[in-house]
Amino acid sequence: MLELDAERYWRFIGAQEGYDGARAVIVGAPLDTTMTFRAGARHAPREIRQFSWVLEEYSPRLGRDLGELRFCDLGDLCLPWGNVREGLRRIRETAERLLRDGKFPVFIGGEHLVSLPIVEAAVERYPGLVVLQLDAHADLLDEYLGERYSHATVMRRVAEVVGGENVYQLGIRSGAREEFEYGRGHTHIFLHEVLRPLEKIARTLDGRPVYVTVDIDVVDPAYAPGTGTPEPGGCSSLELMEAIYLLRGLHVVGFDLVEVNPVYDLSGRTAVLAAKVIREMLLVWANGARPEE
Amino acid sequence: MLELDAERYWRFIGAQEGYDGARAVIVGAPLDTTMTFRAGARHAPREIRQFSWVLEEYSPRLGRDLGELRFCDLGDLCLPWGNVREGLRRIRETAERLLRDGKFPVFIGGEHLVSLPIVEAAVERYPGLVVLQLDAHADLLDEYLGERYSHATVMRRVAEVVGGENVYQLGIRSGAREEFEYGRGHTHIFLHEVLRPLEKIARTLDGRPVYVTVDIDVVDPAYAPGTGTPEPGGCSSLELMEAIYLLRGLHVVGFDLVEVNPVYDLSGRTAVLAAKVIREMLLVWANGARPEE
Amino acid sequence: MLELDAERYWRFIGAQEGYDGARAVIVGAPLDTTMTFRAGARHAPREIRQFSWVLEEYSPRLGRDLGELRFCDLGDLCLPWGNVREGLRRIRETAERLLRDGKFPVFIGGEHLVSLPIVEAAVERYPGLVVLQLDAHADLLDEYLGERYSHATVMRRVAEVVGGENVYQLGIRSGAREEFEYGRGHTHIFLHEVLRPLEKIARTLDGRPVYVTVDIDVVDPAYAPGTGTPEPGGCSSLELMEAIYLLRGLHVVGFDLVEVNPVYDLSGRTAVLAAKVIREMLLVWANGARPEE
Amino acid sequence: MLELDAERYWRFIGAQEGYDGARAVIVGAPLDTTMTFRAGARHAPREIRQFSWVLEEYSPRLGRDLGELRFCDLGDLCLPWGNVREGLRRIRETAERLLRDGKFPVFIGGEHLVSLPIVEAAVERYPGLVVLQLDAHADLLDEYLGERYSHATVMRRVAEVVGGENVYQLGIRSGAREEFEYGRGHTHIFLHEVLRPLEKIARTLDGRPVYVTVDIDVVDPAYAPGTGTPEPGGCSSLELMEAIYLLRGLHVVGFDLVEVNPVYDLSGRTAVLAAKVIREMLLVWANGARPEE
Amino acid sequence: MLELDAERYWRFIGAQEGYDGARAVIVGAPLDTTMTFRAGARHAPREIRQFSWVLEEYSPRLGRDLGELRFCDLGDLCLPWGNVREGLRRIRETAERLLRDGKFPVFIGGEHLVSLPIVEAAVERYPGLVVLQLDAHADLLDEYLGERYSHATVMRRVAEVVGGENVYQLGIRSGAREEFEYGRGHTHIFLHEVLRPLEKIARTLDGRPVYVTVDIDVVDPAYAPGTGTPEPGGCSSLELMEAIYLLRGLHVVGFDLVEVNPVYDLSGRTAVLAAKVIREMLLVWANGARPEE
Amino acid sequence: MLELDAERYWRFIGAQEGYDGARAVIVGAPLDTTMTFRAGARHAPREIRQFSWVLEEYSPRLGRDLGELRFCDLGDLCLPWGNVREGLRRIRETAERLLRDGKFPVFIGGEHLVSLPIVEAAVERYPGLVVLQLDAHADLLDEYLGERYSHATVMRRVAEVVGGENVYQLGIRSGAREEFEYGRGHTHIFLHEVLRPLEKIARTLDGRPVYVTVDIDVVDPAYAPGTGTPEPGGCSSLELMEAIYLLRGLHVVGFDLVEVNPVYDLSGRTAVLAAKVIREMLLVWANGARPEE
Repeated sequence: MLELDAERYWRFIGAQEGYDGARAVIVGAPLDTTMTFRAGARHAPREIRQFSWVLEEYSPRLGRDLGELRFCDLGDLCLPWGNVREGLRRIRETAERLLRDGKFPVFIGGEHLVSLPIVEAAVERYPGLVVLQLDAHADLLDEYLGERYSHATVMRRVAEVVGGENVYQLGIRSGAREEFEYGRGHTHIFLHEVLRPLEKIARTLDGRPVYVTVDIDVVDPAYAPGTGTPEPGGCSSLELMEAIYLLRGLHVVGFDLVEVNPVYDLSGRTAVLAAKVIREMLLVWANGARPEE
Repeated sequence: MLELDAERYWRFIGAQEGYDGARAVIVGAPLDTTMTFRAGARHAPREIRQFSWVLEEYSPRLGRDLGELRFCDLGDLCLPWGNVREGLRRIRETAERLLRDGKFPVFIGGEHLVSLPIVEAAVERYPGLVVLQLDAHADLLDEYLGERYSHATVMRRVAEVVGGENVYQLGIRSGAREEFEYGRGHTHIFLHEVLRPLEKIARTLDGRPVYVTVDIDVVDPAYAPGTGTPEPGGCSSLELMEAIYLLRGLHVVGFDLVEVNPVYDLSGRTAVLAAKVIREMLLVWANGARPEE
Repeated sequence: MLELDAERYWRFIGAQEGYDGARAVIVGAPLDTTMTFRAGARHAPREIRQFSWVLEEYSPRLGRDLGELRFCDLGDLCLPWGNVREGLRRIRETAERLLRDGKFPVFIGGEHLVSLPIVEAAVERYPGLVVLQLDAHADLLDEYLGERYSHATVMRRVAEVVGGENVYQLGIRSGAREEFEYGRGHTHIFLHEVLRPLEKIARTLDGRPVYVTVDIDVVDPAYAPGTGTPEPGGCSSLELMEAIYLLRGLHVVGFDLVEVNPVYDLSGRTAVLAAKVIREMLLVWANGARPEE
Repeated sequence: MLELDAERYWRFIGAQEGYDGARAVIVGAPLDTTMTFRAGARHAPREIRQFSWVLEEYSPRLGRDLGELRFCDLGDLCLPWGNVREGLRRIRETAERLLRDGKFPVFIGGEHLVSLPIVEAAVERYPGLVVLQLDAHADLLDEYLGERYSHATVMRRVAEVVGGENVYQLGIRSGAREEFEYGRGHTHIFLHEVLRPLEKIARTLDGRPVYVTVDIDVVDPAYAPGTGTPEPGGCSSLELMEAIYLLRGLHVVGFDLVEVNPVYDLSGRTAVLAAKVIREMLLVWANGARPEE
Repeated sequence: MLELDAERYWRFIGAQEGYDGARAVIVGAPLDTTMTFRAGARHAPREIRQFSWVLEEYSPRLGRDLGELRFCDLGDLCLPWGNVREGLRRIRETAERLLRDGKFPVFIGGEHLVSLPIVEAAVERYPGLVVLQLDAHADLLDEYLGERYSHATVMRRVAEVVGGENVYQLGIRSGAREEFEYGRGHTHIFLHEVLRPLEKIARTLDGRPVYVTVDIDVVDPAYAPGTGTPEPGGCSSLELMEAIYLLRGLHVVGFDLVEVNPVYDLSGRTAVLAAKVIREMLLVWANGARPEE
Repeated sequence: MLELDAERYWRFIGAQEGYDGARAVIVGAPLDTTMTFRAGARHAPREIRQFSWVLEEYSPRLGRDLGELRFCDLGDLCLPWGNVREGLRRIRETAERLLRDGKFPVFIGGEHLVSLPIVEAAVERYPGLVVLQLDAHADLLDEYLGERYSHATVMRRVAEVVGGENVYQLGIRSGAREEFEYGRGHTHIFLHEVLRPLEKIARTLDGRPVYVTVDIDVVDPAYAPGTGTPEPGGCSSLELMEAIYLLRGLHVVGFDLVEVNPVYDLSGRTAVLAAKVIREMLLVWANGARPEE
C-alpha cells in the first residue's frame, strides 16, 4: 500500500521474512542478570539490529552480499527477569528447536551466560563439538558471588559440558589466578593474542564442528566502549575481522555475539562493530556449513 | 512457534495488526530537514514507540484502555532527505489515503512542517476545519532563511490553507514581533497559557471538525528537554494533559505530535511524555469522533 | 596523621562511625534484577551517598541538623546477582538484625522489591504495621512475566504480608486495570495526588507504627529523570518534601527510598533529591520515633 | 563580501558592534576556581551566548525587542587559572572601567565569586548600593576550606562591602546553621521563596541603586540542571521571570548571572534559560535606568 | 582596551584578521541535509574551531608554525535549510570567489556533499584537476532514496565533473556492490588501506593540480566516533597524518574536511583530530602551492 | 557482623588496611585548578579507585597478584580550592612524610602540577633523582597565562628542581616551538614515540633512582578520551603497558598518574586504563625497589 518502512530497523539488515525458507536464524537473547559492574546488555540485540542499517549488505572484503543468503531474524526471546534458570531453559529450548529444524543459529546477547544453553543444545546435535571463544576474560570461575551460573563462570560450565579439551580461549587478558590455572590444566587458553594462536590451531579444528562465541570485549575498549567490563589492551576491530576470515574454511555450526552494552557508548560504534562482525560471520559461515550432510 | 517478541517495541503500545480493521492509524513522519539549531526529530517516531512500552495500556485518569480501541501502527514513511517538497508530497498522499479510507490519522513527527500537508488533506475532507495548535512558537513567519516551507513558517502556511480565523494558537511564548502582529491580525493567538484560553474557546469549537497539532515544546523544557528549540517558561506535563481532557467532547478528526528530538534527552522522558500524550489523545478522541457520520 | 578524606564521600553526609551508638542505620540494598525496561538501580546507594555531600547537614526548613542525630552508614549489602530469592533473604536478615538491635532502619534501594523483606521483618516487630507508599506505580500485579517477586508485584506481596487494609498508596498514576481494581478492593489507593490524600489519612495513622517506602518516581521525571520507569505527571520535589513535613508527628519505624537509577541522569539531581529527602526523613522521624517504648 | 556569519554565535543575540555607542555592555567572567563539587562554570558565557540564538530578540511578554536597545558584547575576560586574587582584580578593573564610562554592566559568570569585585566597583559609584541576590545558597560562610574568597563566602564578603543591611537574599534554601544565624543578624534573608518576599521589599528598594545577582540555582534543578551545586526545591523558570517583571520600576544599575555549568546539561536548557533571563533583564532595566541623570 | 578574548574561540587557532592579506581562507559549510542515519554535521565547523585551541600553533613533526602562514577564517556560510540546490549554489559561488581572488580554499563541512560545488569551481580554474578522496565510503551511488544529490552519491557526481580517471579513492571499506563495480570501471578505488596505495600513486600525481577531500570516517570510529555513519575497520589517526606527510610535495590547490558530527562524541576528540589534520594540511600545502604561477 | 561492603569501592582494588604495615601507599591528589580548557581531574582518584574493581587483582601478563604486595590507600588529600600554592604545599608535606616513613609513594592526580611537589620531596631523599615523563605535552613553558605554576609549566619547574639533564620526556607530540627549543637544550625530549626511545635510555637509567610520572594523555584519546587536553596521535594502551614492562628492572622510587578527567568519558575506559596501569606499575616496581637499602 503506502511506502512505509514499519519494520526496517527492527530486523537485522538483509534479513528476509519467513522462518521456513531460512538457512540461518537470528535470535536475540537479552539476558542481563548476573553482570555485577553494570547492566544494559539487554538493550544490545535491538541496538545492534538498528545500527546494522548503518552498514551495507555487501562486504567488499568478502565480495559477498547478505542478499545471497537466506536468513531471517525472529526478534528477541521473552526472558523472565530475575530468574536465571528459567531464562537459560528458554534459550536452550529455542536453540534445540532451531537445530532440530536444520537451522544455523545466530544468537545476539545479552550477557555471556547465554552461550551455555546454546552449547548444551549444540553438543547434542554435534558430538565432539569444539567451542571457540574470543574474549578478554577467562570466565572460568567455579562460583561467582556464590552462584554457579554467571557471566564469570560460563566457560567453566561450557568446559564441563563439551570437555575442556574442546574449548579454545583466545585473547584472554583478565582473570583470577585460579582461572588461568584451571585453564592451563583443562582448556586451551591463549593470553592476549587472537590472530597468532588462531593460525596455530586452525588446522587442528579442520573438519570438526565448531561453535564460535564472540565476547565483544575481546576488542579493546577504544573500539568497543559499550560493554559491561571494559578491559584495556585488546585487539583492534580489524584483527577481530581478520580472525574470522582466517577461519573461513571451518565447519562452524552456529555462533553468538555477547556483552555489547549500548548504554555506555554514545557514538553507537560498539553496536555497529557488532553488526559488522555478525555480517561477516554470516557471510563466511552461514552458507557454507551444511549441518545436515 | 517460539515465545518471541520480534515486533513488540516496533509498534506503539497496544497497536493491533491489520490496517483494514483499524479505526485510528499511526504513521511516523520523520521529516527533519529545516531545523536550524539542531536536528534529530527524525529519530522521534521510533523512540516514542519504544518508550511507549514504559507506559501501561490503561489510563487510570480516563478509566479507559488502549485495548478497547481499534488502531494500528504502520511505521515510518520513507522520506527523501534534502528534498522537502517531495517529503511533504508523500505525507500529504498518505494523509489523503487514510482519510479516504475513513481512518482517524495520527502522525508522529518529525519537525513541525509535517502538519502542513496533513492539514491540506484534512481540510479537503472536512471543510471549515479548525486547527488547534499547542506550541511555544508562533511559527508564523512568511519566510525563514529565504524559504517558505520551514518549521518556522508552518502555521503561516496552515493559516493560508484553512483561513487564519480557523487557527487557534495556544501556549505561544516566542516569536518575532512581526509574527505576533500577524497573529493578532489573522489568527487566534494566545500568549503563554494553555488551559485558561482553552476554557474560553472550547464552546466556540463545539461541533466543528478540529485538527490538533501538539508541538512538544509547548511544555517547559524541564518536562520535555528533548526538543529542537527549547523555550523556557512553558506549561507542565499535567497541564498539557488537562488541556486534552478539557477538550474531550470536541469533534477531533486527527492529530499530530511533533518536534520531539530524543538526541538531547538522556532520560527518555520527553519520548515517554509524548507517548503518554498520544495515548490519552487516542483514548479521548480516536474512538469518539465519527468522521463518516 | 595526614589531612585526608579517605571515606568522606563513601558515607552519607553527617553519618557517624560506630554501629553501637547509632540510633538510625543506613544500609544500601543495590538489588537490580527484575527491572525490565532498564537497569542501573544498583548504582543508586553509592551515588546518593556521594551526592549527599552537595547538601548541607543543616535543614533550614526544619531548623535541625544531622549533627544532632546519632546515625551510621554501613555501606551496601553484598547481593548475589541473578538470584532474587537469596537477595531478598539477605535483606530480610539485615532488617531483622537492625530491628532486634533497636535501630531505626533506613534502606536505600535498589529496585522497589527491596521493600518486601524489610516489611516482613518490620511487621514481626511492629504488629499492625501500616505501610505508606509514595509511588507513581501501583505495583499490585500478582505475577509479572511469570514471576511473583518483581518490582511490579511488590505491593501485592506487601499487602499479603501486612493486610491490604494497612497499605496506603499515594501518587499512583500508572498500572494495569486489574491493579486498580485490586487496589480499590483491598488497599487504600489514591490516584495522582500526594498531599491532599495525606491530609485526609494523617489522623487515621496517628499513633500506629508506620513504615514509609518512597519510590522516587512519585516525583515527576522533570525533577527525578534518573529512574527506571519514568512516568510523566508526578508531583514536584517540594510537594514530596511537604508530604514528609505533614507526617511529622507519625510514629514512623523505618523507611526506604528506591528506584533511583543514576545512569540516566547526567546532572545528578535525582541523587541529590533522594539524598535531601532522606536527610529530611531522618531529621523528622529518626530521632522522634521511639520503637522500644 | 560573501554571505557569512563569522561571528553570529559568538555574541549575545541582538548585540551590536561598538563599545562607544553602547548603553549596556556584556562581559563574560569565566572564573571557575573555587567550586569544590564540580567545575565547568568557565564554559557558561560562551554557551549562554550560543544558546541565546535559540531565542528571538523580541519578548512577547514585555512587548519589547533587543533591537530597541544599544548594547554590545565584549566577549570573555582573560583570567589567570589558579590565581583567584588576580582574577578578581581583573574583574574589578573591568567593572570600574565600564562604570566610569557610564555603561550598564552585565556580567556572565563563572562562579558566584565574580559578583564581589563588581559590587566593590559599583558601590564606589553608587553609594548606598543595595545588592539583591536570587540564590539557593546563602553563601555567608566566613571561610570555606580555609579560604576567605570562595563561592561559599561571597555574600559574606559582599555584606562586608555594602553593609549587611543593604543585602537582600531571596530563595535561600541551603546553608550551614551559622550562615542562617549570620543572615538573620546581618542581612535580609528570605527562605525558599522568591516572589512573595519581593512583593514586600519592592517598595523599600524604590529609588535606591540596586545591583542584582542571579545564581541560576535559585531555580529548581528540573529547570536548570546545568549548575555546580544543584539544590532541589527551587522555584520555576516562570517564577524567576515574574520576579524580574515585578521589579521593573527599580533603579537597577547592573546585574550578573552566575553558576551555569553547561557540562551537566545535555539539553542546553540551562543556558537557554540563562539567556532568556538576561534578555528580559536587559529589556527591563538596561534602557530604563539612567544612572547618570 | 580591556584584556578580552571576544573572538578567540570563534576562529581557527592561528587565523589572522583580514581577507586581503590571506593566502589560505577557511570557510565553514554546515550543510547537513541529506544524512539519513543521523544529523549534526552542521555543528562541525564551530566545534572544530573551538577545539583547535586545544592544540598548539606549532607542529613538532613538521617543525612549522601556523604563525608562518597567512590565512584567515571567514566563519560559516549561511545555508538555507531544506533546500539542497540553493545550498550547493552558495558554496560554489564562494569557492569561485576564493579561487578568483587567488586564495587557497579550505572548507570545513558539513556533510560530504559540500565537496561537489567546490570541485566544480576548482576544475574550472585548474583543468585536469585530480580529486583525492580519503573516506570509508565509496559514495558512488547514482541515486540515493530517489535523489541525485546526496552524501551517498557525491563522488559519482564528482567523477562526472572531473572524469572518473581523475578520481582517487582511498580507505574505502563500505558501499553497495554496484558502487564498487562502478569504481572499478571508472575511478581509481582502493579498498581499506590508505598509506600503501598512496605510495603507489604519489608519483602519478606529481605536478598535477590536486584537490583533497577528507571524510573523517576514513579513520576508525575509535579515533573519530563523532561522525554520521561510523564504519569499523578504519586507519588510525597517525596513519591519516602520515598520508598527509607522504603527499607533502604535491601541488594541492585546496582541501575540505567533512562529516564530523560532534553530537555523538562527548570527549571532543573527533573535533580535535579534525583540527589537527587541518593544521597539518595547512602547514604542508597552503604555503607551498602557488596556483597563480 | 552483617555481610556488607561499606568500603569496597572506596579503596583501590587489593589495598589492605593499615599504613604501618604497608610498603606502598596510594594517595589521591585531586588538584584541578590550572586547567584552562576543561576541568574535572578532581574526580579522577575516586573514579579510578571505583573502576579498579572492574579489574582482577591478578596480572596474567606478569603472573603476579596484588595480594602479594603490602600496600594501602589513604584516600584523597583535602586541597583548598583556588589556592594553588597551599595545595602544592600540602602535597609536598604528604610526599615528605611518606618518604620519611620509608614508603613507596603512589599519587593519583589531579592535574599534572601535582608532580612538582612530589619530585621536590623525592629529590631530597634520592639525590640524583631521574624524572621519567610519559606525556603528550612537553609542559615546558616558563609561564602560562602569567602564572609560573601551571599544568603547562610543570616540567620546566621539575627540570629546575632536578636538573634538566635528569629529565626524560617521552611520547611528546605537542608544545609551543619554544618548549621544544628549551627541551632540546636542557632535557632529554623524545618526539611522539615511547617504546623505541625507552629501549635506548633504559640502560642509562640503570641503578639510578627514578621517579615516573604518567600523564594519561600520552595514550591516544581513542584509548583515553577522558582527559583535559586530548591530543590525537598517541600510543596505544598496550604500548604504554609494554613501556612499563620494559623498565621492570629500574630502581623506581615512586610514581604518579595524572590528568584523567572522567567527566568526558561515558564508558569509563580511561579510568579502567589508569587503574590497570597503576596495578601493573605497583606489581613491577612497588615491591622490588628498596629505597632504604
